[in-house]
Amino acid sequence: MAHDPNLWMRFRRDGRAGFGVLEGDEVAVHDGDMFSSCRPTGERVRVDAIEWLPPTQPSKFVCIWNNFHAAAAKQGLAIPAEPLYLIKGANAYCAHEQPIRAPALYDGRVVYEGELGVVIGRRCSNVAPDEAAQHIFGYTCVNDVTAIGIVGRDTAFAQWTRAKSFDTFGVFGPTVATGIDPSGLSVRTLLGGRERQNFPVADMIFSPAQLVSLISRDMTLEPGDLIACGTSLGVLPMKAGNVVEVSIEGIGTLRNEYRQQ
Amino acid sequence: MAHDPNLWMRFRRDGRAGFGVLEGDEVAVHDGDMFSSCRPTGERVRVDAIEWLPPTQPSKFVCIWNNFHAAAAKQGLAIPAEPLYLIKGANAYCAHEQPIRAPALYDGRVVYEGELGVVIGRRCSNVAPDEAAQHIFGYTCVNDVTAIGIVGRDTAFAQWTRAKSFDTFGVFGPTVATGIDPSGLSVRTLLGGRERQNFPVADMIFSPAQLVSLISRDMTLEPGDLIACGTSLGVLPMKAGNVVEVSIEGIGTLRNEYRQQ
Repeated sequence: MAHDPNLWMRFRRDGRAGFGVLEGDEVAVHDGDMFSSCRPTGERVRVDAIEWLPPTQPSKFVCIWNNFHAAAAKQGLAIPAEPLYLIKGANAYCAHEQPIRAPALYDGRVVYEGELGVVIGRRCSNVAPDEAAQHIFGYTCVNDVTAIGIVGRDTAFAQWTRAKSFDTFGVFGPTVATGIDPSGLSVRTLLGGRERQNFPVADMIFSPAQLVSLISRDMTLEPGDLIACGTSLGVLPMKAGNVVEVSIEGIGTLRNEYRQQ
Repeated sequence: MAHDPNLWMRFRRDGRAGFGVLEGDEVAVHDGDMFSSCRPTGERVRVDAIEWLPPTQPSKFVCIWNNFHAAAAKQGLAIPAEPLYLIKGANAYCAHEQPIRAPALYDGRVVYEGELGVVIGRRCSNVAPDEAAQHIFGYTCVNDVTAIGIVGRDTAFAQWTRAKSFDTFGVFGPTVATGIDPSGLSVRTLLGGRERQNFPVADMIFSPAQLVSLISRDMTLEPGDLIACGTSLGVLPMKAGNVVEVSIEGIGTLRNEYRQQ
C-alpha cells in the first residue's frame, strides 16, 4: 500500500460526521471510503469550526503489553516470545481534545500510556512479515489510559481489559499519517506541559510490521483496526485538570484533559 | 423493556442481510431496527432458504470468567468479588451452522464452552441492579471457543483474549429469545451427540442482571452487545469433524461443526 504522505482525520460538523486531509489549519473534505476509494469534494473547513472525532472506527483496538526492551529491563520482565495483547472496548474510543473521564466508582491511580498506533488499511489474515507493510494504512498517536490499580485486584485473573476499557480510555489521533516510516521516530508524552516519556520506536520488541504479521495469524484484521504498540518508561498517574499530550513527529500531538466525572 | 416472547434472528439471502422472527421453519421478515422500532414486512421465508447470521452485531462481546459456583469449587478458584472479564475480537463472530475453524498455526487443544448470552437492548451506563432487566433485550446460546493451550504460554501475561479471539471462536445464536426468564433454565452442550455439559443458570455467581449492572459501571453498553455469562463443568476439547451443540430451552440449539482449516 503505497500512500502519499497525508494526515487523515475525521470530524463532526453540524451534527454530521465527515473526513478529510488536514492541511495546516484547514481540512480538505473528502467523500468515499478513506481506505479504498475517496476524493476531495473541493470543500475546505477550518479546524476551529469542527469537533475532532477518532480518526478511524476500529472493529478492534488491540493493546500490546510488554513491547519495549527498556521497559522490560526496568520492570524485570522477560522478552516475550510472541506479542501479548488484549482488546480495548469500543465504548472507550476518545478523540483529540475530548476529555478523558475518571471512572465514577474508582479512586485509584489512572495512568497515561503514550504509544504509537498502527492503522490497518486492508482486510488481512496470516500476512507474511515482508508483506505486512502493504496492509498498514498509516500511524497515529495513542494514549492507552489504564486504571492501573484494578489490574491486580483479583489474584487469579489480571483485569487488563477492564482497567483499559472505561469510557474515554481509548484515546487516539489527532490524525492517521500515511506515507511515513515510523522506525526512526520517538514517542513523547507531556503531562501538564512537562515531558515524561520520550522513547524510540526502534526499541520495540516486535516492530509494527511484525505485529501486523503475527496478530493477523490469530485474528483477521480490518481496515481502520488499530494496534497500539505498547508503551515504555515514564508512565505516571494523571490528576484532575492535567493536560496530557502524546506527540509523534510527522503525525501530530494528541491532546486531552483528564477530568473527574 | 417488556418484550413479547419472540425468537429474533438475522440471515443472509441473495447476498443481503435481513432480520426477523423465527416461527417454526419460517422467518417473518422485519424491517427497521431490531432494538427500537421495527415491523413485519409481511414477507415470510423458509429457514432452509437462508444462511444464518449471528443474531446481533455486538460492538462488544464480553466474556465472563469464573462465574459458576460448581466450576469454581472443582477448580479450587475463589469466588470473585467482581465480574472478571475480557473482550473477544469482532473477527471471531460465528453464526449457527457456520464451521468453527481450528487455528492454522496451533495444534493444541481447542475447547467448547457452552454459555448463556445476555443481549443488551438499550444503551446504558451505570445501571442500578434493579433496573438492569430493563436494558436486557433477550438471551442467546454462546459457544465461547477457546484455544486453551495458549492461555498459560507466557508466565507473566495470561493470553485469554488471544485464546478466545481466533476467527470463528465467538459463536452465538441461533436466535435471541425475548420475553423469557432464564433463571430457571439450564445450559446443555452436546459433543458428537453426547451430553457433556448440563448446568443451571441459577448456579451463577453473578446473575445476568448483576452482570449488566456491574459491567455498565465500567463500560457503556450498546444495543446488540453480548455478555457471555461464563461456563461451568464439562468443558472438553473438540476434534475435527465433531459437531457441537449448545441448547437452552426457550432459545434453541446452536449447532456448529469443528473443522481443520
